[in-house]
Amino acid sequence: MLLDQPTPLYEQVRRQLLAEIEAGTLPEGSFLPPEPELCRRFDVSRITLRRAVSELCAVNVLIRQQGRGTMVGRRRVRQALVSLSGFSETMQELGLESRHRVLSRKDVDSPEIAMRLSAAKLVRVQRLFEVDDRPMTHEFLYFDLARFAAVLPDLEAGGSFYAALERHFGVVPGGAERTIDVVFPEADIRKHLDVQGFQPCYRTEKLVTKGGGEPLAFSVLLTPCHCVTYTLKV
Amino acid sequence: MLLDQPTPLYEQVRRQLLAEIEAGTLPEGSFLPPEPELCRRFDVSRITLRRAVSELCAVNVLIRQQGRGTMVGRRRVRQALVSLSGFSETMQELGLESRHRVLSRKDVDSPEIAMRLSAAKLVRVQRLFEVDDRPMTHEFLYFDLARFAAVLPDLEAGGSFYAALERHFGVVPGGAERTIDVVFPEADIRKHLDVQGFQPCYRTEKLVTKGGGEPLAFSVLLTPCHCVTYTLKV
Repeated sequence: MLLDQPTPLYEQVRRQLLAEIEAGTLPEGSFLPPEPELCRRFDVSRITLRRAVSELCAVNVLIRQQGRGTMVGRRRVRQALVSLSGFSETMQELGLESRHRVLSRKDVDSPEIAMRLSAAKLVRVQRLFEVDDRPMTHEFLYFDLARFAAVLPDLEAGGSFYAALERHFGVVPGGAERTIDVVFPEADIRKHLDVQGFQPCYRTEKLVTKGGGEPLAFSVLLTPCHCVTYTLKV
Repeated sequence: MLLDQPTPLYEQVRRQLLAEIEAGTLPEGSFLPPEPELCRRFDVSRITLRRAVSELCAVNVLIRQQGRGTMVGRRRVRQALVSLSGFSETMQELGLESRHRVLSRKDVDSPEIAMRLSAAKLVRVQRLFEVDDRPMTHEFLYFDLARFAAVLPDLEAGGSFYAALERHFGVVPGGAERTIDVVFPEADIRKHLDVQGFQPCYRTEKLVTKGGGEPLAFSVLLTPCHCVTYTLKV
């Protein structure tokens, strides 16, 4: 019977470290002080300290960097998975400042995606979303240029795709289908997202439709896993 | 204008490899034939072959294993994220044979979880779920032993938790809250799940409630990312 057992030492250290990170005493991107210093401060053994640090590494609150030490990870955004809207709107609802840059635009020949969108002239817009001036999500946004070419200047100017759709065409999303995987992106996308080869990213495919089911746009989104905690309530 | 461009060679090779994997010609867990052999078979250069293989590695259809070669990954289960039910029911709906083993049971002192469950006597049951005889999900299931002790023999016998709740107490889940992260689990859990240190796992926390919001159980689930594609429709 382990009921009412005292809180183990490593757990006390874990909570203290977490509290300092959450309070900003140990800021994002900073490195932990050397082990001997932390052991002295918490008055614990190296084994106890390492267990506490390991637990925080396991949830990416801390991130081990080979040869450099242990870094305080980025604070995660808690993002609801059910939203119909785009990245900009989602961040706005969270009170976060986001913006995007269009990296490229290309007419593409992708029969599968063209079919899913019933698109006559498929275009792919590559965007990079930033939150607090740091990269957060890489997107390949596909839509039918034969229908929605009017939104391109809005996108280029950094405006929201769905806001533009509504303004130009009075079209509002009514449903979305998503699949979520985890991948290690190729080097060019890692560079945009500022992640290393060992850092996994969520890969979300999202098909957004009008109320009646008519497809509007298809996105492939890559977001470093350490940036986001997804939430879902049913 | 790149409309109607021909399909690049590497993409043709990628599709062919994927087709062979999906047809089972290249079975799960087998290694790809040596590069020179594949280059001859597809009549392509090493660069082209490697690009095709890289694309399949990026989505974990293929998995590079240091010093051993490139392995055909496990076929993914597509799992709807909105389900209220437990693992057993979800797999059953997918027509997959699943079972679990209870690894441990422990009375625990976790004030946060006890509070979320309004539990008088918190118990933690550690389970390992297998699909097709291979480990798929590791679970720490928490519930109030003061209320639901009667389900323990069912769990030990490999029965579903929610089926037992319904049978013994007439209780049916009415809602669930989830958070989803990605982590690299500690060695002991990796061993249960048969994953390597470089293979990320989804970490899902799930609070299941009755219709009125009364909490029933809390689970922490770890599932290797290469085993599951989550789907979500709103």
